[in-house]
Amino acid sequence: MAVNRIDPWGSVLVEDYERIIEQFGLEHFDQKIFPDPNRLMRRGIVFAGRDLQRIATCIEEKKPYYVLTGFMPTNDHLHFGNKMVVEMVRYFQDHGAHTYILVADLEASAVRKVSLEEARKRALSFHIPAYIALGLDPAKTTFYFQSQNRDVVQLAFTFAQKITLAEFKAIYGKADPSRIMSALTQSGDILYPQLKERMPGIIPVGVDQDPHIRLTRDIVRRTKETKFFLPSAIMCKYTPSLQGDLKMSKSKPESCIELPEDDAIVKKKIMRAISGGRSTLEEHRRLGGEPEKCMVFELLKQHLIESDDELQKIYDEYKSGRMTAGEIKQLAARKMTAFMEKMREDMKKAASLKLNFISFKT
Amino acid sequence: MAVNRIDPWGSVLVEDYERIIEQFGLEHFDQKIFPDPNRLMRRGIVFAGRDLQRIATCIEEKKPYYVLTGFMPTNDHLHFGNKMVVEMVRYFQDHGAHTYILVADLEASAVRKVSLEEARKRALSFHIPAYIALGLDPAKTTFYFQSQNRDVVQLAFTFAQKITLAEFKAIYGKADPSRIMSALTQSGDILYPQLKERMPGIIPVGVDQDPHIRLTRDIVRRTKETKFFLPSAIMCKYTPSLQGDLKMSKSKPESCIELPEDDAIVKKKIMRAISGGRSTLEEHRRLGGEPEKCMVFELLKQHLIESDDELQKIYDEYKSGRMTAGEIKQLAARKMTAFMEKMREDMKKAASLKLNFISFKT
Repeated sequence: MAVNRIDPWGSVLVEDYERIIEQFGLEHFDQKIFPDPNRLMRRGIVFAGRDLQRIATCIEEKKPYYVLTGFMPTNDHLHFGNKMVVEMVRYFQDHGAHTYILVADLEASAVRKVSLEEARKRALSFHIPAYIALGLDPAKTTFYFQSQNRDVVQLAFTFAQKITLAEFKAIYGKADPSRIMSALTQSGDILYPQLKERMPGIIPVGVDQDPHIRLTRDIVRRTKETKFFLPSAIMCKYTPSLQGDLKMSKSKPESCIELPEDDAIVKKKIMRAISGGRSTLEEHRRLGGEPEKCMVFELLKQHLIESDDELQKIYDEYKSGRMTAGEIKQLAARKMTAFMEKMREDMKKAASLKLNFISFKT
Repeated sequence: MAVNRIDPWGSVLVEDYERIIEQFGLEHFDQKIFPDPNRLMRRGIVFAGRDLQRIATCIEEKKPYYVLTGFMPTNDHLHFGNKMVVEMVRYFQDHGAHTYILVADLEASAVRKVSLEEARKRALSFHIPAYIALGLDPAKTTFYFQSQNRDVVQLAFTFAQKITLAEFKAIYGKADPSRIMSALTQSGDILYPQLKERMPGIIPVGVDQDPHIRLTRDIVRRTKETKFFLPSAIMCKYTPSLQGDLKMSKSKPESCIELPEDDAIVKKKIMRAISGGRSTLEEHRRLGGEPEKCMVFELLKQHLIESDDELQKIYDEYKSGRMTAGEIKQLAARKMTAFMEKMREDMKKAASLKLNFISFKT
């Protein structure tokens, strides 16, 4: 049968993302905007952004800009959203960005009842090594603990003056004291590098983090006393659930692979995933598989296969019916366990590296 | 004429305070609860409180407790509300309390656009010397800057989990992001000393600060992970405006004496104040003055005359009509300018004292 080469990276979930772009006034992402697009950019997993041209210009003209992300050091697993963020950070890091990673220990202590000491320990022993294993270059990265960064807290206080409760509700859907403090502190984090050097910055986020970007941009527009650049953002799609929903969810463990995760468990989860295979082998050979509906192909595409040629070959084999659902699952399980093994090894190596933490004066 | 000796400290404004006590469920203050009541306690200017017995017991049994207050280092004037708070702090300081004074520099920077550096300078050059001139014992006082105190910020984050927006609105009448961050940080300040040593504490406040006490008490009731004592509070009436309104207001400068204030200006303001004098001298001699309606007598009673006997004598003279409105104003102006002169001198001396600031580790 003829193989459809138009949009080989398409997915049944495309519609949702088009709606998101329209609803929140995002820019469509076009990989031509940046040099040497990475896998996520090339494959349409990066799908939207805000003020991307400002960052493209910095890259082109070799002007200073920053990329920033953070994590909450609570449990000892990451998810594919974290992995994508790290890969995006790495992309900009490789293209001249000053890189900031913040440890959201204040939020961890408030929301998840993890003490600052415990949060610090977990960040150093798990999250940061995992981020490095996922691709972060520690030599080019500046880290800080939110709880130590008075400038961030001061920014949060100042920003609280710039936004009404009604505006907050319009952005977040709801408003409660905890959400408000947390969001304003995140705005402080997002703009903090600009206190050190006035420069544009880009924040790689998942779709559900876009409200923080909108809030921060609204705040910047109203902050006359300090001239901040509007933060740029770049957004990845979710890694869909193994059952075909928009995103993996911890509340359904069978839908979700954690990073790292046990080989036996990860194999079992992949074997039980929704594939684009037909009801019978005969039918599969005759009609071909449906990679667009296959959550296992989605994993290969988003995370497990770097080479576009290799991925195209699998797509063709599967689409033509020569490769069965069982075979693509076996392939994905092999790739995934190899990935996990390498991640665990790299984390061990990363644990002893020297890191650049900002030290704050009293 | 007969002099009314029942409630010589009464004022036309009593009704308002009875309503406040009822509305907010305060305890009536009875000076018998504490040993050696100070002037403000003896004269009914301290009128209400919360959980006062807990503090009375600490004093009686010589158990540890703390008194805490703070100020925002913005402009270079204080008001009579600050003076009363300092006098209340001094009372507890003299009766065994650990004393904490916080410099609300974070709020000053957010709300009043005073940089942290500027706020620090003003606190050290004006506000703290003024507090010492008004009676604070610096040798027994621990100071801290809000912006340096991570524990307070962490408490604020944690407390944000304990309160809904609706509850916040019920306490404060309205809720906006700025008010919420500021109030939660104040709750952090109020309870901070209990992180260092678990002990009861009392916060001297003006009536308008009671919402912070209520919020903090609600939060304590919901905070299981750290066992805080419910903070006690003690409340002074306002110093009424020179025109007879409930309180002095900066927006009406003629109603309001600042600390310190220029001799010539203060004299003029007192001369123009509402007195309890009659329309004509003849009438005044015949009917007697009305000290209960006299804002000048109120100043003498609240602030300028320490001796109860001396105040009683003035009351009698005025009530009987022997002392005229002009004379009581002259007397008050003399006392006030003497007070201001001493305050300015004491501030100069205080400016060079060594202070106990908490130093925070990074």
